[in-house]
Amino acid sequence: MAEFEVKNKQVLFKNYVEGFPKESDMVVTDASTIRLKVPADAPNSVLLKNLYLSCDPVMRIRMRKPGDETSSYFTPYAPGSPLSGHGVGEVVDSGHPDFKEGELVWGITKWEHYTLITQPESLHKIQHADVPLSYYTGILGMPGMTAYAGFNEVCSPKKGEYVFISAASGAVGQLVGQLAKLLGCYVVGSAGSKEKVDLLKNKLNFDEAFNYKEEHDLTAALKRYFPEGIDIYFENVGGKFLDAVLLNMRVHGRIAVCGMISQYNLEKPEGVTNLMCLVYKRIHLQGFTVRDYYHLYPKYLDYILPCIREGKVIYLEDIAEGLENGPSALVGLFSGRNVGKQLVSISHQ
Amino acid sequence: MAEFEVKNKQVLFKNYVEGFPKESDMVVTDASTIRLKVPADAPNSVLLKNLYLSCDPVMRIRMRKPGDETSSYFTPYAPGSPLSGHGVGEVVDSGHPDFKEGELVWGITKWEHYTLITQPESLHKIQHADVPLSYYTGILGMPGMTAYAGFNEVCSPKKGEYVFISAASGAVGQLVGQLAKLLGCYVVGSAGSKEKVDLLKNKLNFDEAFNYKEEHDLTAALKRYFPEGIDIYFENVGGKFLDAVLLNMRVHGRIAVCGMISQYNLEKPEGVTNLMCLVYKRIHLQGFTVRDYYHLYPKYLDYILPCIREGKVIYLEDIAEGLENGPSALVGLFSGRNVGKQLVSISHQ
Repeated sequence: MAEFEVKNKQVLFKNYVEGFPKESDMVVTDASTIRLKVPADAPNSVLLKNLYLSCDPVMRIRMRKPGDETSSYFTPYAPGSPLSGHGVGEVVDSGHPDFKEGELVWGITKWEHYTLITQPESLHKIQHADVPLSYYTGILGMPGMTAYAGFNEVCSPKKGEYVFISAASGAVGQLVGQLAKLLGCYVVGSAGSKEKVDLLKNKLNFDEAFNYKEEHDLTAALKRYFPEGIDIYFENVGGKFLDAVLLNMRVHGRIAVCGMISQYNLEKPEGVTNLMCLVYKRIHLQGFTVRDYYHLYPKYLDYILPCIREGKVIYLEDIAEGLENGPSALVGLFSGRNVGKQLVSISHQ
Repeated sequence: MAEFEVKNKQVLFKNYVEGFPKESDMVVTDASTIRLKVPADAPNSVLLKNLYLSCDPVMRIRMRKPGDETSSYFTPYAPGSPLSGHGVGEVVDSGHPDFKEGELVWGITKWEHYTLITQPESLHKIQHADVPLSYYTGILGMPGMTAYAGFNEVCSPKKGEYVFISAASGAVGQLVGQLAKLLGCYVVGSAGSKEKVDLLKNKLNFDEAFNYKEEHDLTAALKRYFPEGIDIYFENVGGKFLDAVLLNMRVHGRIAVCGMISQYNLEKPEGVTNLMCLVYKRIHLQGFTVRDYYHLYPKYLDYILPCIREGKVIYLEDIAEGLENGPSALVGLFSGRNVGKQLVSISHQ
């Protein structure tokens, strides 16, 4: 690998965001260069060529000004520095004994063509490359583990139970629904367009799906799809959705709170008023983050890889081409423009 | 026991309640009579002389008009009929082979001097009468089991954890705090008067207590009492309290939702806005009702009776004398007038 410096295109974070993020909150620049060699003063590092970058809702949380409640859990981006997030990369140079040039990895990287990873222990090595590499930003990466842990570990699902998933065609939701179907649950998803609803019903094997934008009364819509009530709700949305679901939950129901994307761009979150349902119906409402469950990743791979290879699980991706299209792809998450897992392809192997 | 008819004083429910309940929502009457004998057409029944009646927050929920979300979980009172609730009584006649005249029981009875219990299987026999009988409306009855199940089963407490209890001098809260102290937790309670705060600190062995009415910023108050954050919150109040607590919870904290008394008299509950904390901090928020835990009652008695006898646990009661003072006692719960468990003593053995 050449030791000379190359241009390193980057997406820099401009400044803290209020309300919906805009493309102009980021800037794509060619100003930086990088030497394609692990530097002498960071001997245990790994230099990655980034291939795919993941667009994840949590990135909006990291755009907030430091100092609020969230900062201690999700490190805010530093204005002027590249965004960071999950990605797939190829090792182009390594000073770490566990990583070799040419190996493929996934984990936290930066929004740029080349990234020096100073703590490569946090990276996962990719052992199975017969499936699309991009899947390691989705079904085989953080969102996949999120769906698996959130559904199997948090929701304690049983065959025959009634499962509702919001943002159901997204990176996590589409997999939760398919995991629930494989277990023998009745599964309904909500999404924000006819195209997504059709995909849920016709391609992803959901029993039912509906476009929440066409329902003026979510409580009534859920009653229609779940006349017997909901056993498990996989919460990706928050706010009014949660209120409507609470009214439709069954006794001893479980709600796994994965995220609340409808709330991230609000100055003050919507109030949830139906929490007394938790008492009447003895409901578990449990927030979780995938970081507590990565010890299950090998077990998850053993389960999901055969499902992918045999076509029992399908994964929808929405791939933007080129780092310069990253900001637009990321911003699109918050209007639901993406169909399936949103990612950015920035280099080929 | 005489077979002639006697007057049976009753507290009748007048009509469905909106807002705060008032004494005038109930009426005390002497109009009814009862024959002190199990009638021939209800041969398996038991006739009780009621000794103590319990005033419980859930009774406000039962005053709502049928048809709303709660009706299927808590049967609404019927206008013109006596209130019902937990109480302690003595069997004055029995058609049921398991119950004998003179035995003492606790369970669901009516707000009247004598009550015919047609399904006596639901009653608990009182085996230990060396402790005050009134305790079977409190620490040895439903509120006691609620505290025990909610704390031990729902909160999964560990020695040394930081525990916060709202409505901490009430029927349930005062016991939760003492159970937590016995386990070796750090315990802070909130209550609504200086008298209650003093009792919590000086009589009930809480580490700290504060008067929430004197705190204009609950979030800051909790931060002051829990600089390291809260591991366990025992929720009796709801609304703004829950919002303030969420901001002060620690990672992997647990919230047992026992009730939300601040919300019962509101036409529309306050919105809770800080639910994203559930995700950041991976919090369990679990609603529960004691009815799921009565199988643990014998185990609970084995634990708590020695504690009471040895003075390791103290139980504060606020006893109104006479059925005619029942409505006032019940209404007082919702302004926090009671100090300790509110009950009504209506007859002596």
